[in-house]
Amino acid sequence: MIFASDNWTGASDRVAAALVEAAGGYAPAYGNDPLTAAVEAAFTRVFEREVAAFFVATGTAANSLSLAQFSKPGGVVFCHRDAHIAVDEGGAPEFFGGGSRLHRIDGADGKLWPADLAAAIALYPAVFIHHGQPAAVSISQLTEIGTAYMPAEIAALAAVAHEAGLPLHMDGARFGNAVAGLGVTPAEASWRAGVDVMSFGGSKNGCFAAEAVVFFNPEQAKGFAFHRKRGGHLFSKSRFVAAQFSAYLEADHWLGLASHANAMARRLAEGIEAASGSSLAWQPQGNEVFALIPKSADARLRAAGAAYYEWPTAGPIAAPLDNQPILVRLVTSFQTQASEVDAFLQILSADAA
Amino acid sequence: MIFASDNWTGASDRVAAALVEAAGGYAPAYGNDPLTAAVEAAFTRVFEREVAAFFVATGTAANSLSLAQFSKPGGVVFCHRDAHIAVDEGGAPEFFGGGSRLHRIDGADGKLWPADLAAAIALYPAVFIHHGQPAAVSISQLTEIGTAYMPAEIAALAAVAHEAGLPLHMDGARFGNAVAGLGVTPAEASWRAGVDVMSFGGSKNGCFAAEAVVFFNPEQAKGFAFHRKRGGHLFSKSRFVAAQFSAYLEADHWLGLASHANAMARRLAEGIEAASGSSLAWQPQGNEVFALIPKSADARLRAAGAAYYEWPTAGPIAAPLDNQPILVRLVTSFQTQASEVDAFLQILSADAA
Amino acid sequence: MIFASDNWTGASDRVAAALVEAAGGYAPAYGNDPLTAAVEAAFTRVFEREVAAFFVATGTAANSLSLAQFSKPGGVVFCHRDAHIAVDEGGAPEFFGGGSRLHRIDGADGKLWPADLAAAIALYPAVFIHHGQPAAVSISQLTEIGTAYMPAEIAALAAVAHEAGLPLHMDGARFGNAVAGLGVTPAEASWRAGVDVMSFGGSKNGCFAAEAVVFFNPEQAKGFAFHRKRGGHLFSKSRFVAAQFSAYLEADHWLGLASHANAMARRLAEGIEAASGSSLAWQPQGNEVFALIPKSADARLRAAGAAYYEWPTAGPIAAPLDNQPILVRLVTSFQTQASEVDAFLQILSADAA
Amino acid sequence: MIFASDNWTGASDRVAAALVEAAGGYAPAYGNDPLTAAVEAAFTRVFEREVAAFFVATGTAANSLSLAQFSKPGGVVFCHRDAHIAVDEGGAPEFFGGGSRLHRIDGADGKLWPADLAAAIALYPAVFIHHGQPAAVSISQLTEIGTAYMPAEIAALAAVAHEAGLPLHMDGARFGNAVAGLGVTPAEASWRAGVDVMSFGGSKNGCFAAEAVVFFNPEQAKGFAFHRKRGGHLFSKSRFVAAQFSAYLEADHWLGLASHANAMARRLAEGIEAASGSSLAWQPQGNEVFALIPKSADARLRAAGAAYYEWPTAGPIAAPLDNQPILVRLVTSFQTQASEVDAFLQILSADAA
Repeated sequence: MIFASDNWTGASDRVAAALVEAAGGYAPAYGNDPLTAAVEAAFTRVFEREVAAFFVATGTAANSLSLAQFSKPGGVVFCHRDAHIAVDEGGAPEFFGGGSRLHRIDGADGKLWPADLAAAIALYPAVFIHHGQPAAVSISQLTEIGTAYMPAEIAALAAVAHEAGLPLHMDGARFGNAVAGLGVTPAEASWRAGVDVMSFGGSKNGCFAAEAVVFFNPEQAKGFAFHRKRGGHLFSKSRFVAAQFSAYLEADHWLGLASHANAMARRLAEGIEAASGSSLAWQPQGNEVFALIPKSADARLRAAGAAYYEWPTAGPIAAPLDNQPILVRLVTSFQTQASEVDAFLQILSADAA
Repeated sequence: MIFASDNWTGASDRVAAALVEAAGGYAPAYGNDPLTAAVEAAFTRVFEREVAAFFVATGTAANSLSLAQFSKPGGVVFCHRDAHIAVDEGGAPEFFGGGSRLHRIDGADGKLWPADLAAAIALYPAVFIHHGQPAAVSISQLTEIGTAYMPAEIAALAAVAHEAGLPLHMDGARFGNAVAGLGVTPAEASWRAGVDVMSFGGSKNGCFAAEAVVFFNPEQAKGFAFHRKRGGHLFSKSRFVAAQFSAYLEADHWLGLASHANAMARRLAEGIEAASGSSLAWQPQGNEVFALIPKSADARLRAAGAAYYEWPTAGPIAAPLDNQPILVRLVTSFQTQASEVDAFLQILSADAA
Repeated sequence: MIFASDNWTGASDRVAAALVEAAGGYAPAYGNDPLTAAVEAAFTRVFEREVAAFFVATGTAANSLSLAQFSKPGGVVFCHRDAHIAVDEGGAPEFFGGGSRLHRIDGADGKLWPADLAAAIALYPAVFIHHGQPAAVSISQLTEIGTAYMPAEIAALAAVAHEAGLPLHMDGARFGNAVAGLGVTPAEASWRAGVDVMSFGGSKNGCFAAEAVVFFNPEQAKGFAFHRKRGGHLFSKSRFVAAQFSAYLEADHWLGLASHANAMARRLAEGIEAASGSSLAWQPQGNEVFALIPKSADARLRAAGAAYYEWPTAGPIAAPLDNQPILVRLVTSFQTQASEVDAFLQILSADAA
Repeated sequence: MIFASDNWTGASDRVAAALVEAAGGYAPAYGNDPLTAAVEAAFTRVFEREVAAFFVATGTAANSLSLAQFSKPGGVVFCHRDAHIAVDEGGAPEFFGGGSRLHRIDGADGKLWPADLAAAIALYPAVFIHHGQPAAVSISQLTEIGTAYMPAEIAALAAVAHEAGLPLHMDGARFGNAVAGLGVTPAEASWRAGVDVMSFGGSKNGCFAAEAVVFFNPEQAKGFAFHRKRGGHLFSKSRFVAAQFSAYLEADHWLGLASHANAMARRLAEGIEAASGSSLAWQPQGNEVFALIPKSADARLRAAGAAYYEWPTAGPIAAPLDNQPILVRLVTSFQTQASEVDAFLQILSADAA
């Protein structure tokens, strides 16, 4: 009953097999190998257009380096208040941007909304240098609360960003779950909606450690290789990231893995809705379920070894009153078993018995 | 006949097997897993003292973050003219150090020598802030030209560094080859000789991608976790680097791999010395052979598919005259087959026939 | 009728005379001159304790370098939502801190309050590196809305900061106005209340360009000279900043200038309170008056050449309705003439006629 | 007998008078004042073309921010081994460039030479990202040893730089002395010879503290205001730097001051050549004289209160043998009196008596 995070998972069988298969022999270093080239081609196929793809070590690196590519002195990156870049990346986006500022914007459903974004950008008029200058807009797909931007929502944000001359970056740590959940193509969920550059995550969804920065306009990737190198993120044995991505992208394996995770999340969500005393905080759109569960259920689940995080409702967490429901985040993954879900739900509902 | 670099290699069987074995199940993220803890303990065992070890993505990251830990405003890092940090890391050490300067020092045998180091440090007197301030000393083991510092040589440099209040960093990308070549213990080749922090490389010697920063005085590692996080180098699924290191360190597997590479280098070196028209540029002390070979031999070897790099002798490479010997670097590895070496030597010596 | 900002002013006669007097002859550069030494002594006298003082070019530099001295990787600086460092310094504090984050906190009266500060710091628990780590607390005296922290208020914030191991920085761009307004000593308004380092501003209150960073514990200034030099803020002809500060600090000239500015602000405030249709937004405690005035009065004042800024009430400025009062900021200075104030008030009140 | 440095000087009468004259009244802050605009126009007149000029606090800031404008990740700036940016700016150019590297090149006469520059640039081939990428070329006028680049020499370096797509920066801390010494126009010594951006120094030649960055192609200055602001180098009371430059540039006052300094240097140089036992190290081309003088003369001069620096001949200074000549640098200025020079020469020649 591990619902702590999808980064507690292992690797999918196919990904693991591909890595082992690539383990022998020799290949040129630093990405000049055939497997890396093949994966670059695979990205182009997946996204139905020529892209420039760069492997990096972590999602934090992917986000920070993506944004560094568009950094400016006094540059400001606009993002949701709860964005991973703003909360959980230890200052990496600021560091790689030479001291960037993250302008955090509130927004319902964990999303940035066009009018709010436009209003925030307007706080930095071009003639007034003291405030700094807009540099980029970043959104997360899935959002930090497990919701998914619909292509039209992305397009509306992209319109605001582009109108202001800013690129739109997508933190796609759970892009696979979003695409699978929305039932759209990767292209529709990204560049066709106006995304300029994406952090494409593989680690949470079946890879050991495989992250990529994908530029949808290769011209905008000019010089990016130096950002990656300067950040210590150019793997010498690039082919071993490539091997993972190769299996991950082949025959939509990644979408299959994500679909399974999403299905498990739905199973979990339905069970929670059906359970007396528990409820969904909001509808999941991927592999993350946010639920309000009774304190007594929480105690039973913890005792049974279930792993998941209590989620802050706002600011510092107040101690909940006796058996007052608490907000928890439950993350499913490609590894989640239906039996795990069912066991969880059974313990959750034990009160009703 | 691949002697281009040890980063063209794959992974050792044991390392690959360990990674696959770890691929299933769940584990806490960000290094809070049992396997990561076990590897930290393994490092303590290998070095015969308590150490603080941190996994990072690349050797460049290991070096740059190690030095960042000791960075100062206007800080100067002293290193050999040919040091990897000064030549091949795309400005990463400078970037992570907030604009550090690398003060490059000439030195015979690819090494830094104590008197030269002391003289360089003396160029930055404490009372004269315009020049900047000394921050750290960095040496490479093996050096960039394949030689190895003996413990006494390291100790002499450490004495100069410590006298000036500077830490001694070791770029141990090929530390295993050095230890195996010198016939000393890891402790003797590092902290017992005065090394304060080391980049411990696994990727060139049997791992897929496994690098670590090892502090020999854990007190000096205080706050380092924030440097790593800010650099985007904290792996969420840390256990997969741990799995590699686990197999790598167990039962001195790493030293066995390095010993094999070194033996292949010796076989190669002996063959070159015996070959008419070719000669060693200097004696190898690890897994790198630098040799002067005739242009005609180079042509034959290239035609036969041999891979290796011609090495600059000084500054921009002048076009060599007809059949003038050229300097080449030949790197062996844990994968190198005796038959590869022998095939190379046979082609090299074909002139003599 | 210039109430735009105290940085629209010139220099006081005494400051100008001192500079001209120092203009001849020779003196050692980079602060090794007798006049610089004398000013360092003057700061020690003014603050009734040994301090370490460093001249820099601007208030932005003073703030940014002060905070850089305490920077950490992933470091977070806590400040009021409207702090100058967070709004008007073009990303300099972030830049000099190597990518610091400014955590902005709401607070009544333009001030940070202890409970809010403690709650904000608590968002960055030491064991959770993903969020970054607290590095410093910064307050502005006067605040951005012209209020002044009382010593007891500062002490309460200092207690929270120090409890968390953080230094307390004071942006003293208008420190003189605060001290004069509070009727306390410079020591009481700074280190006796727990301030560790201060940006001591002279430019807004009678100097041409004279700003200093003052460390109340000289031990904490260790290495700061390198921060200043690396920032390009070490003046070669330091004695010309010293000359300004020399006259500025002598015989409490700075407090005399500030007292005059404050008196003019009170005169202005009293007149506004008396004027029909206008009102004070809040009571001034220094040389800044925030007032709500009718649109018609604003039009008359502008037409008559008065200079001042309309102030945003929240977020992007909404177009005010017909003759709805607008919020304006009126800044007086050592130069302000009572006749300027009276002329302003007369035009303001013309409606009543 | 003060020949220590031209930054030991005060301000010229005209500059001092202009500053005092500007000290009264009000003006918009941050460069939006008429005097700043007038100086921008004056720069355009002086250089006979439209330029974009930005005031900053110090020469170090001017150099570092100029180069920051052209910075790149992993960027390399090419300069002479002895360049001020490489020796005396405490890491500021590296810091403002986000970790730039200064590639130092040897060169006779204190100058960079085209073939050496081309060879150095060639060490960073575009396809090989590990070394970093060329970003800019910087030369000093006067050089660090008091020689002056002729326009044709600059043009030859500019050709190499531009061929490689790099801007040519000039550190013009003593540009006035160079222009006066060469007998060319400011335009001929700068943009007509291919200089793209210049640090235009006033502080060493008659100003209190006045430095500017001048872009000869205003298009290349785009966004530079944000670099300056982020560096804390935007003066709020910009008009006081403007006032200095206004007097400095008017009626070629700056060239008059520089010509005087140069004439004093020639007088000094001629006297040294005539003195028995002393000699010029090389011919001065501005206001810096490098001479070899006997140790006994040095002792007499020091005893008589003469101030000047002994100059390192190479690396750490070896203790000179008994009465072996030592190399000294003697800097004249707009303040130098002929009587000072003559007194110096008389003491120097006392041996001959």
